[in-house]
Amino acid sequence: MPKVDLDALTPTNRTGYPAPFDEPVQGRWYRRLGPVSGLTDFGASHVTLEPGAWSSQRHWHAGEDEFLVMLSGEAVLVDDDGDTLLRAGDCAAFPKNDGNGHHLQNRGSVPCVFVVVGGGRQMGGEYSDIDMRFTADGRYETKDGVDYAARRI
Amino acid sequence: MPKVDLDALTPTNRTGYPAPFDEPVQGRWYRRLGPVSGLTDFGASHVTLEPGAWSSQRHWHAGEDEFLVMLSGEAVLVDDDGDTLLRAGDCAAFPKNDGNGHHLQNRGSVPCVFVVVGGGRQMGGEYSDIDMRFTADGRYETKDGVDYAARRI
Repeated sequence: MPKVDLDALTPTNRTGYPAPFDEPVQGRWYRRLGPVSGLTDFGASHVTLEPGAWSSQRHWHAGEDEFLVMLSGEAVLVDDDGDTLLRAGDCAAFPKNDGNGHHLQNRGSVPCVFVVVGGGRQMGGEYSDIDMRFTADGRYETKDGVDYAARRI
Repeated sequence: MPKVDLDALTPTNRTGYPAPFDEPVQGRWYRRLGPVSGLTDFGASHVTLEPGAWSSQRHWHAGEDEFLVMLSGEAVLVDDDGDTLLRAGDCAAFPKNDGNGHHLQNRGSVPCVFVVVGGGRQMGGEYSDIDMRFTADGRYETKDGVDYAARRI
């Protein structure tokens, strides 16, 4: 059945971020759609952000394009150029290796929902606002290369 | 600017399908989002189906996963298992090479809108309901290998 049975998937708010960087994503509830759908050429996740939650720490990927579609509610897209409001039906694209860190913040009073797709090669990337980067082999480290005791999930 | 300026993109209903297979997609208006966004790891299109229009001839890809998200209105997803209604917020996934041809039909009285993502390797594929297949090098031919005078676009 090609239609994804979203109700059959239990959302999780798991994160591999080391404290205290995990705090802003506690209200990010996501369902990974690829594994249950048989998709392997790219990943897809269905994400709900509670009021106050962030989609991630602000980041960019060295080797992976990302693309998102807002489904309901509103979120503020933050990148190097400032704030951009996203509403249902809006799309946003994040080409790999552009060095322009991005994330979404739900600054409203109701949840917002979006779908995000990612593809390419996992080559790591950086977080714009904190002393952390992620590596091709799934680790977190400081921008000076000191390993955090945490792993990406 | 990561947000895609949809209003700045002129939708097209172009198709490479040879007649008469092009007729059901005349009311399919799409904007390709990858070229204007710098995405290269996968493709993305924003599609509006007028009442009566199809998303494509019913097909499957040998080497490319597809994934779609309904944004507004309703469409009927048709595959080997029959009809499935898709509404705003629904997602559907089409793993490559599953041999289960799929497409969307707008059987309603108002337009519907969806976003579709495709990634992987262009290796051709087949149409389920007509004597046509598409090749890795962008041609259409009958299932016996007779070339159509038409090219995929």
